[in-house]
Amino acid sequence: MANGEFSLIQQYFVGLGEGPFVERGVGDDAATLRVPAGHVLHVSTDTALVDVHFPSDLPAADMAYRSVMAAASDLAAMGAQPMALLLSLTLPAVEKDWLQQFTAGLKAACRETGLPLAGGDTTRGALSLTVTVLGSTPESQFLTRGGAKPGDRLCVSGTLGDAAAGLSILKGEVSMRCPDAEQALRDRFARPTARLTLGQALRGIASAAIDISDGLLADAGHLATASDIGIEIDSAQIPLSDALRSLDDTEQALRWALAGGDDYELLFCLSPLAALPAGCTEIGRVVAGSGISCDVMPEQLGYDHFTH
Amino acid sequence: MANGEFSLIQQYFVGLGEGPFVERGVGDDAATLRVPAGHVLHVSTDTALVDVHFPSDLPAADMAYRSVMAAASDLAAMGAQPMALLLSLTLPAVEKDWLQQFTAGLKAACRETGLPLAGGDTTRGALSLTVTVLGSTPESQFLTRGGAKPGDRLCVSGTLGDAAAGLSILKGEVSMRCPDAEQALRDRFARPTARLTLGQALRGIASAAIDISDGLLADAGHLATASDIGIEIDSAQIPLSDALRSLDDTEQALRWALAGGDDYELLFCLSPLAALPAGCTEIGRVVAGSGISCDVMPEQLGYDHFTH
Repeated sequence: MANGEFSLIQQYFVGLGEGPFVERGVGDDAATLRVPAGHVLHVSTDTALVDVHFPSDLPAADMAYRSVMAAASDLAAMGAQPMALLLSLTLPAVEKDWLQQFTAGLKAACRETGLPLAGGDTTRGALSLTVTVLGSTPESQFLTRGGAKPGDRLCVSGTLGDAAAGLSILKGEVSMRCPDAEQALRDRFARPTARLTLGQALRGIASAAIDISDGLLADAGHLATASDIGIEIDSAQIPLSDALRSLDDTEQALRWALAGGDDYELLFCLSPLAALPAGCTEIGRVVAGSGISCDVMPEQLGYDHFTH
Repeated sequence: MANGEFSLIQQYFVGLGEGPFVERGVGDDAATLRVPAGHVLHVSTDTALVDVHFPSDLPAADMAYRSVMAAASDLAAMGAQPMALLLSLTLPAVEKDWLQQFTAGLKAACRETGLPLAGGDTTRGALSLTVTVLGSTPESQFLTRGGAKPGDRLCVSGTLGDAAAGLSILKGEVSMRCPDAEQALRDRFARPTARLTLGQALRGIASAAIDISDGLLADAGHLATASDIGIEIDSAQIPLSDALRSLDDTEQALRWALAGGDDYELLFCLSPLAALPAGCTEIGRVVAGSGISCDVMPEQLGYDHFTH
């Protein structure tokens, strides 16, 4: 890191780097972390671009918060305990107010996820954030997309479709009669929650898991492919929030729940005998074969950066 | 990762993910790595942007190669053994030829560094590459920027200034009479080498180390600050390649050696009794105090993304 970049990071990001797994954080050529004995490391990286992953008028605090949560959600899907994150931030210019707001959102997400900021990079260019997250699990106790078996129940945490509705509201495409519902949906896009505690609780219990970032049908498809099984979904069982249910266009609500991304809920499979965790809903089943079937199939499938 | 991105990665990046530390690579929510018992993890991330870090007409293979080497150089500076890399690639469009060339460069760099591609992300936008590298060392045997002591010798690997000269040639700002020298300098920019073997050999020997990415004076400054010491450099001792020496403008050659970045050589400190490794040169000394002094101080200091 060059001088100016370094002082910039020192000035704004100070105090975000402390954590039980961080031996040495920002300030050397690399961050140094301790992975607990008998544990494996899980690492994932996600890039968020302005006007692609979030609208340019999203508050800076929300950009930071949701980028960290989106990356942390990959740790949740592995059942991993959070260790640290690295942030590579590309900015068109150094603006004090913007950076202060961004740092506030970053700090909130670091605290909420238990991911200290252990390192990163800062460059000048079109606004983008690449967040790398690191976590750990005991050696043979992590979740994967593979492992689902015919007869397993398909389950999901929380409610689906809210973030897609929230993004649509943020873009001014949709409005709702109830301001509280509108705010709740916007917040689901701007301030998502990575299901880290649930992910860790599912270790040794779920046969397969994935987080819903691309949309229920798209991510169920990834899980089905990795597990070499088929999935049947009952649309009537898909959990919808009260806010989303208050939308007049109920078909649109279901379309968002099936194909909207960015909810960062966990989709997972349980054997017939395993107890359903609190806050989760059974929405279908694993069957022999391949592919996803649902009694309602929306035309619009999961968002794909290169085909849409 | 969405469907199209995933198939894109499968198609081009297949076969780059195997390595002794990779338990599970591309294809799940996170990559899973094994850190050897008694070792700590070192992790670093670097973003390279078109027209900032490399010219837009640099061949795609070189973009990939140099981005991986630049990131791997941070592992070298820690004395770390390479484990794996993650690549977050932002592309304006999917072009088959470009991706094939890019993959060839990526493959060469993966092989050369011993860093398998364990995961990543692909998004659509202005061309940029964020490379995250992971490595390990025994718990108490890694290099840092801190630790240099007055009386230590300041040493550097290889030759300096070549990459800055090569970039200037690539941009058409400078030309040389000898085509071989011109090619050698271009290659130092386009195909740098991370000093991974040297870094590991310096564990327990060097009192402090950093890689030269911002320029000799700038990176010596980072080392001096972290070690809370001063550094004196003898400009006449700075190793210059035959190619750079063949430049008519000898002042420019020295300026590049002092302030040009992107050489990815290691700058390190040795106690008076330690043997100088092969291919390295003593260029100065560590003194009490602070700051960098050199008998020649160029006006232009190390490249800084926000102040230049």
